[in-house]
Amino acid sequence: MSQHRSTVRPASFDLESGTASCGASCASAGDGLPPPGTPDIEIARAARPRAILDLAADTLDIPSESLIPYGHTKAKITLDYIAGLRTRPRGQLVLVTAITPTPAGEGKTTTSVGLNDGLNRIGLNSAVCLREPSLGPCFGMKGGAAGGGRAQVIPMEDINLHFTGDFHAITAAHNLLAALIDNHLHWGNAQHLDVRRVSWRRVMDVNDRALRNITLGLGGPAHGIPREGGFDITVASEVMAVLCLATDLSDLQERLGGIVIGLRSDKSPVFARDIGADGAMTVLLRDALAPNLVQTLEHNPAFIHGGPFANIAHGCNSVMATDTALRLNDVVVTEAGFGADLGAEKFLHIKCRQSGLRPHAVVVVATVRALKMHGGVAKGDLGIPDPDAVRRGTSNLQRHVTNLQAFGLAPIVAINQFSGDTRAELDAVRAACDAVGVPVALASHWADGSRGSENLARLVAERLDAPPPEVRFLYPDSMPLPDKIRTVAQRVYGAADITLDWLAQRGLEDIAAQGYGHLPICIAKTQYSFSADPGVKGAPEGHVLPIREVRLAAGAGFVVAICGDIMTMPGLPQSPAALHIGLGPGGEVVGLT
Amino acid sequence: MSQHRSTVRPASFDLESGTASCGASCASAGDGLPPPGTPDIEIARAARPRAILDLAADTLDIPSESLIPYGHTKAKITLDYIAGLRTRPRGQLVLVTAITPTPAGEGKTTTSVGLNDGLNRIGLNSAVCLREPSLGPCFGMKGGAAGGGRAQVIPMEDINLHFTGDFHAITAAHNLLAALIDNHLHWGNAQHLDVRRVSWRRVMDVNDRALRNITLGLGGPAHGIPREGGFDITVASEVMAVLCLATDLSDLQERLGGIVIGLRSDKSPVFARDIGADGAMTVLLRDALAPNLVQTLEHNPAFIHGGPFANIAHGCNSVMATDTALRLNDVVVTEAGFGADLGAEKFLHIKCRQSGLRPHAVVVVATVRALKMHGGVAKGDLGIPDPDAVRRGTSNLQRHVTNLQAFGLAPIVAINQFSGDTRAELDAVRAACDAVGVPVALASHWADGSRGSENLARLVAERLDAPPPEVRFLYPDSMPLPDKIRTVAQRVYGAADITLDWLAQRGLEDIAAQGYGHLPICIAKTQYSFSADPGVKGAPEGHVLPIREVRLAAGAGFVVAICGDIMTMPGLPQSPAALHIGLGPGGEVVGLT
Repeated sequence: MSQHRSTVRPASFDLESGTASCGASCASAGDGLPPPGTPDIEIARAARPRAILDLAADTLDIPSESLIPYGHTKAKITLDYIAGLRTRPRGQLVLVTAITPTPAGEGKTTTSVGLNDGLNRIGLNSAVCLREPSLGPCFGMKGGAAGGGRAQVIPMEDINLHFTGDFHAITAAHNLLAALIDNHLHWGNAQHLDVRRVSWRRVMDVNDRALRNITLGLGGPAHGIPREGGFDITVASEVMAVLCLATDLSDLQERLGGIVIGLRSDKSPVFARDIGADGAMTVLLRDALAPNLVQTLEHNPAFIHGGPFANIAHGCNSVMATDTALRLNDVVVTEAGFGADLGAEKFLHIKCRQSGLRPHAVVVVATVRALKMHGGVAKGDLGIPDPDAVRRGTSNLQRHVTNLQAFGLAPIVAINQFSGDTRAELDAVRAACDAVGVPVALASHWADGSRGSENLARLVAERLDAPPPEVRFLYPDSMPLPDKIRTVAQRVYGAADITLDWLAQRGLEDIAAQGYGHLPICIAKTQYSFSADPGVKGAPEGHVLPIREVRLAAGAGFVVAICGDIMTMPGLPQSPAALHIGLGPGGEVVGLT
Repeated sequence: MSQHRSTVRPASFDLESGTASCGASCASAGDGLPPPGTPDIEIARAARPRAILDLAADTLDIPSESLIPYGHTKAKITLDYIAGLRTRPRGQLVLVTAITPTPAGEGKTTTSVGLNDGLNRIGLNSAVCLREPSLGPCFGMKGGAAGGGRAQVIPMEDINLHFTGDFHAITAAHNLLAALIDNHLHWGNAQHLDVRRVSWRRVMDVNDRALRNITLGLGGPAHGIPREGGFDITVASEVMAVLCLATDLSDLQERLGGIVIGLRSDKSPVFARDIGADGAMTVLLRDALAPNLVQTLEHNPAFIHGGPFANIAHGCNSVMATDTALRLNDVVVTEAGFGADLGAEKFLHIKCRQSGLRPHAVVVVATVRALKMHGGVAKGDLGIPDPDAVRRGTSNLQRHVTNLQAFGLAPIVAINQFSGDTRAELDAVRAACDAVGVPVALASHWADGSRGSENLARLVAERLDAPPPEVRFLYPDSMPLPDKIRTVAQRVYGAADITLDWLAQRGLEDIAAQGYGHLPICIAKTQYSFSADPGVKGAPEGHVLPIREVRLAAGAGFVVAICGDIMTMPGLPQSPAALHIGLGPGGEVVGLT
């Protein structure tokens, strides 16, 4: 299981072939799907998914009694079965990351799905591991998050709505802890929690700005102790991060028990286990810990499990899912949130460090349109060919590439093709890749499915045939926390230095004094720039990263360092997607794009 | 399908036979279950459930493609399949209700499950329809709610935890509406909602007193409009009541759209559909509307779906589940919350009135211990035989019986037997039943399963062989709202009259002026007394029912009249069940009783 099949054909490097080999012909590819440009939901609905129990048996050799079906096309893999896999060797891990995101879009999830289909197309046994979408953004601005075009996971509607209930379970476990905290205060506060220093908030999987800052416990003695509080969105919950890093039920409970809920007046931390919450929380999360199995449009296995924020948390799907997929497949493609400065850095420094997972290959996704924005073009002008702007914008791509090289990785660039991209613009990207010595493939999976990602898949397969890279972390556990932040700021963001607000400085000292100085750091920075200023595109240098606040995620096992305003509860726009989402005449969901 | 089988044997009326025929022998009944007195969860875990797809095919003739499995022992029945059943005749409906509850316990759910098993035992095709338990009380004081002893529904742990996610979906839909309301206020308030008169609160499925009264929208202009608000528990959500009364997806959306979210300054109501929320809410509830199928310990079908509060809502499982069960079975046993004064009254006046369902038989559950409490015995003295106290307490039972007779029903009394009940005490109950002309059966299903409920089942089967009763509502739609309240107070509660606080008086006038005067009323009164005073046991007369407040549930289709303090968000006790719930060494749930 640990080596891919021997049928891999040589990879082709012709940039143009991405469309040339496919393009028009694929609209009649015989897959029965509507042509490119059809809304994602209609393509997804036209797909005929395989029964998930059959797919699991055929492609992964999982017996049906080791699956917990949720309908006919979704299933969880039982924890018992997973425990039995631990002796199998792991397959090879491919990380998909991206340039700094812009409103033009990069298509990281779409490329992950397309690459997985491409790898299967060329004869490898490959699965993709993705994060679960959050309901909040789905009804807000963003719409669904299950890939796009002909590179999607299905059943798309279910995945974007309640799916298998994982996020609801996380919400319930998080808020049970919150209720137990206020109940503890109400009944005499035996732990002597400082009511002003309760740090555990509540969560809800909805975009609801009015819940960011609240006062609670109002109304008199029967209704609790009055204090300030607030809600974050569920993906920002430490319980989410804990679930995504836990390796089994007992590790889950250990981490939940280690969550710091607040401080006593002597500043000593109070843990979730101190008020007896960890057992009940684990019970609520027992099913949620089991990874979810679905399929791509091309009927290849997809593990979709967990979805922590990529700013105040590490932004990767669960260790349980990635590890399970690696035991069951020769190759596993996974993605990390935002650009490589945040997503790949946290994937490596947090997820890989904690779990022992190591990527064998890494793909950096870019689009000509996004590179043009990094080159200074306004969103309204992206339709105008501008190879010079693309050339300027590749500074962003090159920075991400050299950053990944600093980790010991040998990245591959994937250009997620749009129909308006010109040859001159594509050549500019290739030249930039040549300049930093990385291979590049044009990928048209959005329009063409696996035919469009075949060349990318060949490049990746070639990398997987080479010996695994020696992954190097940029800092050791033993480095002091401020130096860890400075290291990432300088070596990944290109910053000259960091500044620590007085509160942040003292916070780091307290955290170290409490015995958490060995933890990795998780920097919460805007995803729209290497710097802390979202307006600065390209590859800025010499800037200073201002750390305003730090938070200990003791259960998850990292220290969050926050730059600027990081919103942990989004708001709805003036005309939210919810107003356009409904059921059509046949009971089908409309408006979920 | 509409008539039960002809194999029914004559019913026996020997009170003593309940234990005599079973008792000791049943501990070795060959069913492989632990003996009576074993904790419910251990009995449930020892049971070997049938695969739900097989059970549905064998007992209900439902093809597997019309079921949505959730694991191997739970499933939803698809809405398409249910739509195709509408032309089938309905089976016969049996309502299980109870005397006024006391801390001694009555066992309404247990008796419903036991009766269903008994009916199947004597050859009828019967199913039971129950409410879904709420997570809040499960981690608070109450523990699980899936029957008890040998009269349980399984899988007990799943049913008591997330089950099929219905309550989470209701929470999400409710809170999406709340977020859309505050977002509407934030972005200019085009509907001119009076921010002081927003009546839509938020919900969470947890006991959390600190959320009862909050201020929200704090923190400045980016964080919404400051106002007062609060949280109820999910079972108190009008969305829950709506889901339980809706007959299909379009009725669901119509009801959701008709929810009143608040008033304009001119007091005109603003509806959920006015801010465009009904479509997205319906999408979130699409799966939740489909009824859930599980099984009893004896492998008979159980529909568990919905669970509205029995005070500020109607306290019955869903119309969808009851109606579907009736199309698929000759007999359906269902329960209604609290005692018959609240549960049966609302079942008839709200659920039956709206849906066209009519019970053919009704069972009133009593225990000797509870009757003793109604006769004045303190909880600590319930172990002492006291036939006189039982005799005094039967006034409560008799009042419920005559109330049901006023509806045109001919009730049957079930004594849910406890091991300490004496012959003299049981005789006292029989004499009281004889005095009001109703049959009575001793039932020991808790200890003995269907062997213990066989006599009760025969009594019920005999009633079902008789022509259906002419069910009469106590008030017509056209009666003015205050008179509807007075009618229930006088004819069901034995009150002399009602008083309406000034606010309640004006509220009823406003509701009538808005065009809702035709709706039934839903009285939120303590469940512990016929009066509004929970300390008054037995069958009080001549009291006055004080109506403090009224609320319009326009989407659900009733008007709530509130007496005294009705808590819509419970609190946790000093030592909540959550502190004792956890996973055992084998990953099994412990502490969930």
